[in-house]
Amino acid sequence: MKKDKLEAINAIALKRGFYMPSAEIYKGKSEASGLYAYGHLGKAIKLKFENLWRKFFLSLHDNFYEIEGTCILPKPVFKASGHLEHFNDPLVQCLKCGFRFRADHLLEDELGINAEALSLDEMAKLIKQHKLKCPKCKSEKLSDVAFFNMMFPIQLGALSKEVNAYLTPETAQQAYLAFKREFEALRRRLPLGLAVIGKVFRNEISPRQLFFRLREFTQAELQVFIAEEMLNADVLGIWQEIKDKQVIAKLIKDKEAKNYKLEELNKSGYPKLYLSFMYKIQEFYLEKLKLPKQKFRFRELSEEERAFYNRIHFDIEVFIESLGGFKEIAGLHYRGSHDLSSHEKHSKESMHVQWQNKKVLPHVIELSFGVDRNVFAFLDIFFKQEKERTLFSFPTSIAPIDIAIFPLVNKDGLPEKAREVYNLLKPYFTCFYDASDSIGRRYRRQDEIGTPYCITIDHQTLQDGTVTVRYRDSMQQERIAIDKLLDWFCKRFY
Amino acid sequence: MKKDKLEAINAIALKRGFYMPSAEIYKGKSEASGLYAYGHLGKAIKLKFENLWRKFFLSLHDNFYEIEGTCILPKPVFKASGHLEHFNDPLVQCLKCGFRFRADHLLEDELGINAEALSLDEMAKLIKQHKLKCPKCKSEKLSDVAFFNMMFPIQLGALSKEVNAYLTPETAQQAYLAFKREFEALRRRLPLGLAVIGKVFRNEISPRQLFFRLREFTQAELQVFIAEEMLNADVLGIWQEIKDKQVIAKLIKDKEAKNYKLEELNKSGYPKLYLSFMYKIQEFYLEKLKLPKQKFRFRELSEEERAFYNRIHFDIEVFIESLGGFKEIAGLHYRGSHDLSSHEKHSKESMHVQWQNKKVLPHVIELSFGVDRNVFAFLDIFFKQEKERTLFSFPTSIAPIDIAIFPLVNKDGLPEKAREVYNLLKPYFTCFYDASDSIGRRYRRQDEIGTPYCITIDHQTLQDGTVTVRYRDSMQQERIAIDKLLDWFCKRFY
Repeated sequence: MKKDKLEAINAIALKRGFYMPSAEIYKGKSEASGLYAYGHLGKAIKLKFENLWRKFFLSLHDNFYEIEGTCILPKPVFKASGHLEHFNDPLVQCLKCGFRFRADHLLEDELGINAEALSLDEMAKLIKQHKLKCPKCKSEKLSDVAFFNMMFPIQLGALSKEVNAYLTPETAQQAYLAFKREFEALRRRLPLGLAVIGKVFRNEISPRQLFFRLREFTQAELQVFIAEEMLNADVLGIWQEIKDKQVIAKLIKDKEAKNYKLEELNKSGYPKLYLSFMYKIQEFYLEKLKLPKQKFRFRELSEEERAFYNRIHFDIEVFIESLGGFKEIAGLHYRGSHDLSSHEKHSKESMHVQWQNKKVLPHVIELSFGVDRNVFAFLDIFFKQEKERTLFSFPTSIAPIDIAIFPLVNKDGLPEKAREVYNLLKPYFTCFYDASDSIGRRYRRQDEIGTPYCITIDHQTLQDGTVTVRYRDSMQQERIAIDKLLDWFCKRFY
Repeated sequence: MKKDKLEAINAIALKRGFYMPSAEIYKGKSEASGLYAYGHLGKAIKLKFENLWRKFFLSLHDNFYEIEGTCILPKPVFKASGHLEHFNDPLVQCLKCGFRFRADHLLEDELGINAEALSLDEMAKLIKQHKLKCPKCKSEKLSDVAFFNMMFPIQLGALSKEVNAYLTPETAQQAYLAFKREFEALRRRLPLGLAVIGKVFRNEISPRQLFFRLREFTQAELQVFIAEEMLNADVLGIWQEIKDKQVIAKLIKDKEAKNYKLEELNKSGYPKLYLSFMYKIQEFYLEKLKLPKQKFRFRELSEEERAFYNRIHFDIEVFIESLGGFKEIAGLHYRGSHDLSSHEKHSKESMHVQWQNKKVLPHVIELSFGVDRNVFAFLDIFFKQEKERTLFSFPTSIAPIDIAIFPLVNKDGLPEKAREVYNLLKPYFTCFYDASDSIGRRYRRQDEIGTPYCITIDHQTLQDGTVTVRYRDSMQQERIAIDKLLDWFCKRFY
C-alpha cells in the first residue's frame, strides 16, 4: 500500500510534470542522485507555497522583511557558524569494494534503531557487535566510522589555490550576515525579522526518500532578532486572543501528541513569543493549507537530538503515508544569542546594537521550512485513489492550475466562446485551456493534477450566457453566468 | 559626475537597505568579491521585477510555462553544452608578484580597445607590443595568456574522488534537460516555452562594475522550442497588429541605433517570430518598466562577437550613466537546433519529438535577462538629485514600497487612525508606517527610496474622513476619502 502509493505519485509526477530527476537524460552516465527538477506543475505549487509563506509570516509583525544573500559564502562564515567543525555525517567505507555509506543509516536499516545521536565509537561498536555488512558487496570488512563534512567546497577566484568558500547549507547565515545593516536601515527596532527563501546545498552521502534528503533544496527561513526580555512578552500582539487556544504537540515527556492549551504551556515554562509562533505555524498548516488535524503535530526534540545552541526546539511534522510515518517539514528554534555572538567573535565586528538606550546582543528565534519537503507532503496528503479516478484534492491555495476551461465540442462557435472565458479569467488565475478528447477524459486529466474547478462551454452558453462549473471533489456541477464568473472565483481563491 | 552618481547610489543602497557586499563583516579577512546581497528594499524590487517578467513573458503564448532545475548539474551536461571546452576567460599571471588578471580587461583598460573577440595569441602580442604591466606591482614580466574555465567544479557524493559536476553558469541547460518530459506532459505542442528564474555561478577572474560582473547572480530566461518552419510565422498571433510598429535597434551595419519598422526588418531577412519577441521585449521595458526611449536599444552582435551557435543575436542595452554608457541587461538569441542536437549526441537520447505526424528536432529562441543587472539599471536610470532632495522616480511596477502612511502627530488619536488606514491597504500593497520626525523628513526618507505615494492622516481626517495623498514626483497633494483609497490605489498599481 505504502510503496504502491509512492509509485503511483511518482508515476503521475513524471508523466504530468510535477518533478523529475535532474539531468535525467544522462542517467547511468553520471552521478546526479539527490538532485530533482520541478516540471511546470511542481514549480507552480512551489511558487504558490513560497508566496503564501511570504505573505503569512512577514505579516506577523510590521518589522519583518525579506532579504536575499548569496549561496557562496566565504570560509570564515562557516568557522563562526560551526559548520566547518560540526556539519558532518558518519561515514563508513567497505574495505573490499570501496563503497562508502552512512553508518547511522546502516544501523537504522539493519537494527531498526535511531542512531543519529550516537557517537562514532558507539556506531563502530554496534556495527562490529552485530556483524553488519557492506550493503553493496556484503563484505564484513568495514573501515572505522569517520566524519565526512557535508558542505560543498568552493575555490573563489582565479587567484585561489585552496578552498576559500563553501555553498551554504542553510539560508540562516545570510540573515545573520545582513543583520547589522538591516537593523540600521530599518531604524533600530526590535524585533527585526529577516526572511530568506533560497537554495541550500548539502553533500549527502546517501540521498534518499525523494525530496526528504536532497543535495540541493530550497529553504524558507525567518530569523527573528529580539531583545532577550521579549522572549516571554506579547511581541506579536496576539496573546490575549490565542492564550486559550490549543496546539497539537508531543513534548519530550510525551508518548503521543496531545492538545495543549497555550496558557498551560506558558505556565510550564515555554515563553509567550515562542508559543505565539507555534500557534501561527499551526494556523498556517491547518487553515491556509487545509492539512487534516490528525496529520499534523509539533514534536519537541530532546537535548541529545537538538543542536547544542538550540534552547527550545520543536520540529513540525506531518504524516506522509508513502514514506511510512510522521516526517519533519519545518522547525521552530530558539537559538539564544549563539549566532550573533559567534559571528562577533570570529569577525571581530561588534554585533551588539544600540536599542532603547542600551546595548544588546539580540537573541534569535528561527522559523525554518523545507520548501521541497512541504511540496512533497502536499502530494502525499492530498492524493486520493477512487474507483474511477485518481486525484489530488489540493486546496485552492496550492493547486498548480486554478481553473480549466473546455469547449464541449470543437465547433459551433464553442471554442471561440471558450477562449473568451479563458481570456476573461487568465489575468487573475492560472488557467488551462483544453479542447481535445471527450469531456469525461478532460475532467479526469484535471482531477489527476488537482485542478479545483473546470468550466465547460456548451450550446446553452450561446443562448443564455451561462457555463457549467464543475467541482473537483464532489464532481457536482453548477451553472453560472459568465458575467458573474470573475466575482465567483475571486471569492473562492482570495 | 559619473563617479559621483555611482557613489551617491552606493551610499543610499548601503544606508537604506538596497544591497550590500556579501559577508561584509568578514571584509579584509576573506575573499568575497563579486558577491552581493540584497537588503529588504533591493529584494522587494527584485521580486517585483521577477513577477512582472513572469507574468508578461509567460502570457505571450498559452504553452509557455515556468520550471525549476538544479544549480548543480553533472559534468556530461557541460560537455554537451560546450562550457567545459569554451567557457573560458583569458588569464595572465604576473611572474613577479603572482597576481592573476584578465588579459582582455588589461587591454581594454590600457589601450581602450574591445578585446573580447581576440585570440590568445593576439592578446599576448598586443600586451608585449605595448609593454603593458601588472596592474598591481607594475612589473613587465607577465606569463603567456592562458584559458581559465569559469565554472565552479563540484564533487558530488562521498564516493567521488574527482570533479563530477559543476555549478551551472546559465539557467538554459535546465530547460533543455527538462524539454522532453515537459513536451510529453504538455501534450506534444510546439511552440513550447520553458522559463527558469534562478541562480547561476561564474568564477570571474576580476569581478567589476558592481552588479555587472558578479560571481553569483540571477537569470530569468525563457527557452522557446519551435519547429524550424515556425521561425518566420506569426506564432504569437500579433503580427498584423505590430508589423507597422517600430523597434529601436542598432544593426551590425549601423553606427547608431535607429527606429526600424518591423515589416522592413522582416523583408530584409529577420524572421517574424524573432521580431515579435523584439517588439514584446521593447514593450516590456518602455511600457511596463517606463524606461525612457532614448536609454533603450537593441544592439546586433557581429559574427565575431556572438557565440558560434547563435544565428541571430541582439543584446538589449540600456544607458547606465554611472557605469559610463550603454550596457547589456538582456539578450535575444536564435540558437538554431544547437542545444538539443548536442544533448542528443552526448546523452545518446533522441531529442527529436513526434509533432504533427512528423519527427522534428526543435530549434530554440532564447530570451535571457540578467535580473541583478536590471535591478541596478533601474537604480541608475530612476535616480534624481534635486536641490532639496534625492529620489528614485521608480514606476509603481518596481517601487520597493508602494505606499507610506504617516500620522501628522503622535497624539489626538491620529496614530490609531493611521493604523486603520495601514491595515486597510496592507493586504493589497507593500505599506510602510512611519511616525517619527517631522512630516518633511518623513517625505524625504520615502523619496530617497522611491515610494510613489505617501498618505498623511491629520486632524481634518478625524472630522471628514479624508487624508492627504502626496505624489512623489510632483510633490503635489490631494485629499481623498478613506473609503475611496483602496479603489484609488488599485487603479494606479494594477
